[in-house]
Amino acid sequence: MATTKKTLIVYSDDFDKVLAAFVIANGAAAMGDDVTMFFTFWGLNVLRKPETEPHEKGVLQGMLSEMMPKGPGELTLSKADFGKMGAQMMRNLMRQENVSSLEELVETAKEQGIKMMACKMSMDLLGLREDELVDNLEFVGVASYLAEADEASVNLFI
Amino acid sequence: MATTKKTLIVYSDDFDKVLAAFVIANGAAAMGDDVTMFFTFWGLNVLRKPETEPHEKGVLQGMLSEMMPKGPGELTLSKADFGKMGAQMMRNLMRQENVSSLEELVETAKEQGIKMMACKMSMDLLGLREDELVDNLEFVGVASYLAEADEASVNLFI
Amino acid sequence: MATTKKTLIVYSDDFDKVLAAFVIANGAAAMGDDVTMFFTFWGLNVLRKPETEPHEKGVLQGMLSEMMPKGPGELTLSKADFGKMGAQMMRNLMRQENVSSLEELVETAKEQGIKMMACKMSMDLLGLREDELVDNLEFVGVASYLAEADEASVNLFI
Repeated sequence: MATTKKTLIVYSDDFDKVLAAFVIANGAAAMGDDVTMFFTFWGLNVLRKPETEPHEKGVLQGMLSEMMPKGPGELTLSKADFGKMGAQMMRNLMRQENVSSLEELVETAKEQGIKMMACKMSMDLLGLREDELVDNLEFVGVASYLAEADEASVNLFI
Repeated sequence: MATTKKTLIVYSDDFDKVLAAFVIANGAAAMGDDVTMFFTFWGLNVLRKPETEPHEKGVLQGMLSEMMPKGPGELTLSKADFGKMGAQMMRNLMRQENVSSLEELVETAKEQGIKMMACKMSMDLLGLREDELVDNLEFVGVASYLAEADEASVNLFI
Repeated sequence: MATTKKTLIVYSDDFDKVLAAFVIANGAAAMGDDVTMFFTFWGLNVLRKPETEPHEKGVLQGMLSEMMPKGPGELTLSKADFGKMGAQMMRNLMRQENVSSLEELVETAKEQGIKMMACKMSMDLLGLREDELVDNLEFVGVASYLAEADEASVNLFI
């Protein structure tokens, strides 16, 4: 079977939507597809390191930086989260049902060579610097995403 | 005109988003397209029967089972729902404007031969068994969705 | 490079999602692509004029008309909005980071010849008349969107 290409825009940082994105992305990569994930806006929070050197930030971006989740471990459910209880419940269910954790799914995505792009404009807006995000990302504009999407047979916005 | 194929991932169980999904799916099927809907995560709630035999479930899945909507009749709006008042208002408006009800749209989708797939991994996570969902579904993994999407010209995540 | 076509369904009226939609749409148009945006359901609120002649509306549609945002200036964030404070903060950040305002992005979309379609069924449901929306729209059904999507290489639901 010919290799096909797929792209996913990860716009959301809801635990459940990010889970869906990585299950689809890893499934496609396991089938031999070329997969690109373009993380933009809230989706960038999936890529944040839990701990980073403090940066001088403006007031608004400093507030955002505190409030937004720092990596997969802090994501919350899109609904019925009840102060992170929902996401914790989902993590327990995933363990119980032998579904890989979100952290493992991100790791698998890297191991499978999924290309991960971070949207520079969104990073500027949210005040996120390159060293606050995980390694091996491409920092790009929307044109780079569009070029990938043009070559792909399946493109999703999540 | 050649038949083309379309796939929709129904991830959400918001009344308004599910409405959009079925309007698009039925519209495409009416134009002669091959349509596949892949219900995953909250979207599975669209397929739940209102009443089913009680199942023994773990504590978390039992709670989820109670809380989550059981079929189209219990879905709520994505915003401004005010304890189901919003969805009820939308149902009234749909009647007033001669728009098919969500239940009718689901029925039409079946009659038009739209292929409906339920995501097995999500069923395991949410603790939903096959006999709790409506008839004539295919129970599949993400690979089956991806195979359908590969053949399709339009793929949406809703 | 050959011209390719892209379509975006703008279903949401969340400030942040609409921003994403217009950044993608304008980016594609700037690269020479043919772009069609299909505004449906809450997404129609992006197209509302701030002030219009009063219309006689039924009770429900009159209430909706009051409650729903009237154009880009009244959109709120999908999360952490705190009574429009979040959207205002985002507007300030956009100014600070030299990102075009949403109003400017809509203007650019028109100038670049992006085709804007408004979903008639949703207009009926929400009680929005043609003269309540901005100029130069096509008022169409879902079949017109599907015909555009069939010719496009990238189709997103936002």
